[in-house]
Amino acid sequence: MTKTNAGHFFEDYQVGMEIVHATPRTVTAGDRALYGSLYPNRFALHSSNLFAQACGLPESPMDDLLSFHVVFGKTVPDISLNAVANLGYAEGRFLRPVYAGETLRSVSQVIGLKENSNGKTGIVWVRTTGLDGQGDPVLEYCRWVMVRKRDTGAAAPETVVPELAAKVEARDLKVPEGLNFSNYDKDLAGSTHMWEDYAPGEVIDHVDGVTLEEAEHMMATRLWQNTAKVHFDATLREDGKRLIYGGHIISLARALSFNGLGNAQMIAGINAGAHANPAHSGMTVFAWSEILAAEETSRPDVGALRVRMVASSERGMAGKLRDDSGRYLPSVLLDLDLWLLVPRST
Amino acid sequence: MTKTNAGHFFEDYQVGMEIVHATPRTVTAGDRALYGSLYPNRFALHSSNLFAQACGLPESPMDDLLSFHVVFGKTVPDISLNAVANLGYAEGRFLRPVYAGETLRSVSQVIGLKENSNGKTGIVWVRTTGLDGQGDPVLEYCRWVMVRKRDTGAAAPETVVPELAAKVEARDLKVPEGLNFSNYDKDLAGSTHMWEDYAPGEVIDHVDGVTLEEAEHMMATRLWQNTAKVHFDATLREDGKRLIYGGHIISLARALSFNGLGNAQMIAGINAGAHANPAHSGMTVFAWSEILAAEETSRPDVGALRVRMVASSERGMAGKLRDDSGRYLPSVLLDLDLWLLVPRST
Amino acid sequence: MTKTNAGHFFEDYQVGMEIVHATPRTVTAGDRALYGSLYPNRFALHSSNLFAQACGLPESPMDDLLSFHVVFGKTVPDISLNAVANLGYAEGRFLRPVYAGETLRSVSQVIGLKENSNGKTGIVWVRTTGLDGQGDPVLEYCRWVMVRKRDTGAAAPETVVPELAAKVEARDLKVPEGLNFSNYDKDLAGSTHMWEDYAPGEVIDHVDGVTLEEAEHMMATRLWQNTAKVHFDATLREDGKRLIYGGHIISLARALSFNGLGNAQMIAGINAGAHANPAHSGMTVFAWSEILAAEETSRPDVGALRVRMVASSERGMAGKLRDDSGRYLPSVLLDLDLWLLVPRST
Repeated sequence: MTKTNAGHFFEDYQVGMEIVHATPRTVTAGDRALYGSLYPNRFALHSSNLFAQACGLPESPMDDLLSFHVVFGKTVPDISLNAVANLGYAEGRFLRPVYAGETLRSVSQVIGLKENSNGKTGIVWVRTTGLDGQGDPVLEYCRWVMVRKRDTGAAAPETVVPELAAKVEARDLKVPEGLNFSNYDKDLAGSTHMWEDYAPGEVIDHVDGVTLEEAEHMMATRLWQNTAKVHFDATLREDGKRLIYGGHIISLARALSFNGLGNAQMIAGINAGAHANPAHSGMTVFAWSEILAAEETSRPDVGALRVRMVASSERGMAGKLRDDSGRYLPSVLLDLDLWLLVPRST
Repeated sequence: MTKTNAGHFFEDYQVGMEIVHATPRTVTAGDRALYGSLYPNRFALHSSNLFAQACGLPESPMDDLLSFHVVFGKTVPDISLNAVANLGYAEGRFLRPVYAGETLRSVSQVIGLKENSNGKTGIVWVRTTGLDGQGDPVLEYCRWVMVRKRDTGAAAPETVVPELAAKVEARDLKVPEGLNFSNYDKDLAGSTHMWEDYAPGEVIDHVDGVTLEEAEHMMATRLWQNTAKVHFDATLREDGKRLIYGGHIISLARALSFNGLGNAQMIAGINAGAHANPAHSGMTVFAWSEILAAEETSRPDVGALRVRMVASSERGMAGKLRDDSGRYLPSVLLDLDLWLLVPRST
Repeated sequence: MTKTNAGHFFEDYQVGMEIVHATPRTVTAGDRALYGSLYPNRFALHSSNLFAQACGLPESPMDDLLSFHVVFGKTVPDISLNAVANLGYAEGRFLRPVYAGETLRSVSQVIGLKENSNGKTGIVWVRTTGLDGQGDPVLEYCRWVMVRKRDTGAAAPETVVPELAAKVEARDLKVPEGLNFSNYDKDLAGSTHMWEDYAPGEVIDHVDGVTLEEAEHMMATRLWQNTAKVHFDATLREDGKRLIYGGHIISLARALSFNGLGNAQMIAGINAGAHANPAHSGMTVFAWSEILAAEETSRPDVGALRVRMVASSERGMAGKLRDDSGRYLPSVLLDLDLWLLVPRST
């Protein structure tokens, strides 16, 4: 009997099933440094302990996406090892910042199942929660993936399609305890544009591009212990190019978005997301954003911006997302709908 | 007179000579993070402080091979700068785990010399010890290398071939002080297979592959301050591909072996090892293991497995090691004989 | 109105202008480890806490160039985003070592302006200071860059060419407080050559070469949050090769210089510097040094060597810098004039 993990297949899931994912991970200053070497990150809150302390936090937290990737990575051996496609995200919330020295682990609950009409694959919906060392949640999100069946003759499960919110309500966003932007230093932050300066409908071209390298995306993907073979084994594709973990593109787009959204210091929610087209080494990634909404939060000095953040493999595509038939343009790599926390002018 | 280090040549060594190697190195959380970004490592003991504490250790130790590479790297300028080949390992023991903040250094003793019949090279045997800040040993191993003579006319030294044990006896393995697997959490570890589940003769294909990149092996090799030119200077070979440090392949195979040996949390000994063929960027590395023996240790909850761990540049070669004439197959990169510590079912 | 940073143009600067640069940065053990993985660094003072403590320091400091790059990187969005060329350095001094956990930021003062006769560009001189969390300086240097005009019709400013010293005087070098080389361990340092062993005129070929990789220079350049597009976006050049940050070559040459200058533990000053030719991935970098002067310092156990450190894209070019017409040879990548602190024999 084999001792290697073949991953779960569609018929292995039942609605309500709880999965404890393996490999708890202590995050450290080393992970922060690597994150900063892999993405052109310049948000001051995640760069400087002193800046973070001036904003009311005990020290500079881990980048929100670093925590997200660590939590996500643990789910791969149980959820997406046999996935054909990562279909979407919803109801993502960052519940509190994570600090160096904390240990994260992940649990998921299966919340939906639907076999595809071809009888070969099905869609699995899970709600994943990242837990700290005390077992308290630090972030949560739903995602759904298309998973192969082991046995195409296996009976289809009862279809359960979960009702997922189209967006996280602004009132449900967690402003980190202690966060205080009332003495915010724009010079050190590197941007003069505050929450009031952004209006729904505004489109921002983040201008800069980064050409993807095999070594970089693999180092990133290993850092969060994401084990999907396609990211590492070049022999699995005819062109010898590995498929790049979608989260690498998320982090890259977020870092590029500094140039235009430099005060959008924290991610509070993930409303929706699609990895529209695969990314490979040699591509140059650009990013643009569209402001979808601006909402108040529980604090007068902290505003929330709902932002569509798009990664593109072509320069100068700001605002261009779909073709006439509604399909994503071939250049669109990522279409992500986020809530960001931004200081308000006071 | 040149001030650069030309390395030692065969005639520079005498049996009994003690060599203090340069560049003590403080290992940190940064090294751990880099190790995790360069190898697809998922052993929970080396990933989570909380998991390590639940196993009786003060915190998550450095990966055993990280410590090995740091100790090994220091010996390169004195032992293998003029080496033609790294011939073998024996009597390797990991004496205690190393933790972030500790400073390692290395000393070696020359234990054997034998000039080759061609008069151009000779074999040097050394016993190397890694020392902590108090000068106490943390690991030790023997290796032998073929080294060029500076002057082919130099007289041959008296031949001394050390008697090296074919394997480390299980009773001589050090179980780290405090290690306690009696409350071992298999869910978090990611494997259900305990010491009792493995039997001598069993062969495990670790399935996953990783394609080698120049940037990655160079970053790893620099991390342990291994200065051998062939790993960094592409102009030294006609094909422009650097020779990859054999230890990079060791760490890669060990990380890949998680998929099938996920509870083999620690390396306790190195019985033997051969870098069977050179590795270059672009190769995809796979791994398989054969269980050679299962022995008890000083603790009832900790078993030892003797494992042949093989790295291959071809997929699906589990169990295939040598051709009819007894030579390593061209696809075999590494043949390593290890002792691993594994929790027992209780 | 765009919210992205277009950088400053020549006509945006006035002599006397003070610029507070964005993105303060806390440096950590993670940055140290990355520095060690990107450059073949073996100076014991920057490798071992115990060695540094034996030399009178509280622990191993950040590599001097790591601090330099962090300070430099912050200035890029304000000084060199529209620069055509980085023309020179002068009056650089390292005022004290920086330790893990410290937060650095940068300020610059414009000290000179001169429009070029073509009316399209001009030279901007700045004095940049790196500040710690208390606002005290840790290092300082002048550099001058050629910057494009936004509007070629804009009036030329009054020409102010600052008087910059041809070299930092040895008496103005700061020997770090507490530094004490009187019990210096040459075995652990890896070199027997002390300050007295070097004489002006001596040329040292550092022998080893490192072939440049895209992933490595980008990871380094991101680490110091240097955002210049040309280092990351391969589509900006016809040959698809990114321009490598000049500081990457500085750090590489400095690390290579260990082989011949292994006891030159600290950089105390930068007298002058030129990035003679651009560097691209695939090049193999070699280094050589010329001793320009040997001076005493405020401490009897610490000597200062003034060293010309040259990076070359060809092997074996020690001593070869310029052609008959006085131009840099095409193989010269870097010509840097440094003050180094070296233990004296006692």
